[in-house]
Amino acid sequence: MSQNLLVVGSVALDSIETRAGKRDEILGGAATFISLAASRFCQVQLVAVIGENDFPDEHVRLLAARGIDLAGLERVPGRTFRWAGVYANDFSSRKTLDTQLGVFASFRPKVPAAYASSKYIMLGNINPELQLAVLDAVQGGHFVAMDTMNLWIETARDALGAVMRRTDLLTINDEEAFLLTGERQIARAAIAIRKMGPKAVIIKRGEHGAFLFHEDGVFFAPAYLLEEVVDPTGAGDSFAGGLLGHLASEDRTDFAALKRGMLFGAAIASATCEAFGVERTAKITREEIDARVASLRALTSLDPT
Amino acid sequence: MSQNLLVVGSVALDSIETRAGKRDEILGGAATFISLAASRFCQVQLVAVIGENDFPDEHVRLLAARGIDLAGLERVPGRTFRWAGVYANDFSSRKTLDTQLGVFASFRPKVPAAYASSKYIMLGNINPELQLAVLDAVQGGHFVAMDTMNLWIETARDALGAVMRRTDLLTINDEEAFLLTGERQIARAAIAIRKMGPKAVIIKRGEHGAFLFHEDGVFFAPAYLLEEVVDPTGAGDSFAGGLLGHLASEDRTDFAALKRGMLFGAAIASATCEAFGVERTAKITREEIDARVASLRALTSLDPT
Repeated sequence: MSQNLLVVGSVALDSIETRAGKRDEILGGAATFISLAASRFCQVQLVAVIGENDFPDEHVRLLAARGIDLAGLERVPGRTFRWAGVYANDFSSRKTLDTQLGVFASFRPKVPAAYASSKYIMLGNINPELQLAVLDAVQGGHFVAMDTMNLWIETARDALGAVMRRTDLLTINDEEAFLLTGERQIARAAIAIRKMGPKAVIIKRGEHGAFLFHEDGVFFAPAYLLEEVVDPTGAGDSFAGGLLGHLASEDRTDFAALKRGMLFGAAIASATCEAFGVERTAKITREEIDARVASLRALTSLDPT
Repeated sequence: MSQNLLVVGSVALDSIETRAGKRDEILGGAATFISLAASRFCQVQLVAVIGENDFPDEHVRLLAARGIDLAGLERVPGRTFRWAGVYANDFSSRKTLDTQLGVFASFRPKVPAAYASSKYIMLGNINPELQLAVLDAVQGGHFVAMDTMNLWIETARDALGAVMRRTDLLTINDEEAFLLTGERQIARAAIAIRKMGPKAVIIKRGEHGAFLFHEDGVFFAPAYLLEEVVDPTGAGDSFAGGLLGHLASEDRTDFAALKRGMLFGAAIASATCEAFGVERTAKITREEIDARVASLRALTSLDPT
């Protein structure tokens, strides 16, 4: 039976420049991409914060139209979190131009009572103290996935360690995995991370796919080959959202379920890159996702076509 | 029935520095790696040139011990081709410190009469004029694979085009594929390359695996995950050697055979990276190769373990 997925993380207004163009203050944030991607598969419950007066209603409508439960989307006085960045021409790196925490600076996640029994939880990339607060507010026995970033590895190591000890699945970029562990190869980094708590770890390599390291083995999900990339912002979060949404929809978290989920995540992540912001993520149909998953399966199949 | 593979390319003395250490004037060269890798699968016939007095006998003995036919290994007055380079700490790039063409500057490949009927030909990365000379010296009806590099794309475009029109399979790095085509994404680059002649193209991405673009579909072969890289020199050539050797051993060149061959190539390429020069490439056993191929198949399999 399909389960609910509780998502916590940032909802933001992003200003983005890539070789394909420029957009100002479009809908973004880790929790936004996770929720939109997961909403294709299961009921999503969002815990996040936005500014009282500066967050466009059309964004709220877009999330609501996808069936996302917004009871945990808090509106408080102040400005919505804003991020601005520019991508290198080959998308191999990006530079943050501006970060304005706004209402995020004093955010304390409030988990509605109706969310406390969610069986699946995705802790998007936010301060690990806030990730801990969410875990403290829900019942036990759930499957917890988390993401993190350089900032928290460098500045909030203890809290990050505490979250990791309560995490089933960590998703992390390769560079962040190296920073977190001091290792230089992903297989070694994964071994070190699993010793820190997470039973499974997915190391994301952007256009080069993602590796799952699990007690039952190692799995590699290739990225879907795109002919044009427009904006990769949120691709990693869409990947996590597709994966977690799929796990929740099947209510299975074994190795085989994680593998399948990664292909669904990769399919949605590829769509995210095809337009600015959430434009494609919000519109991709289940049929398009399934077609991309089939294509990803064929990509590594040895069977004669 | 297993067929012969004719290999042409450089036999060199390499001086290499990586984070793992430093070696001076060790056995290297594209044709060396291709031949050693392919020799695990089929009879290899080598066409190359070395200096009359400066090429250590032990290297000749090593090639002969692997059953490689050295009738086409010419010895001429002068110095053997030498290359020196240093790798970045994360192996993402390398810098050439020195190139001494030596006897390679005036090399004209001489194909022994006994090689002219070889059904498989691998044109290692050398001046395309020399690749053409080899094609002119052999009978038709064979399967031709070729590699190339930035230098020839920039300085010998016409000759390169002429070789490509007579090629069945081009293997090329992603950066070189972009330079050759002016494209920035590998799917587009592959389409452009196939219009230049090759019926199939393999775009190599180092530790990120390799894509095959073929009229029957697209296939991705992941790279074998190593816990430590010592020296990636020759990995791409070992990949091509393992692939071509496997094709020759099966005497099949259809899409499914190319897919299988890529996994064998990836298995040997990974071994090449585990030690300096040809140390591991020359020693890896068929059992070790088969174990790595099985591991590569499992890496992308959705079957429950």
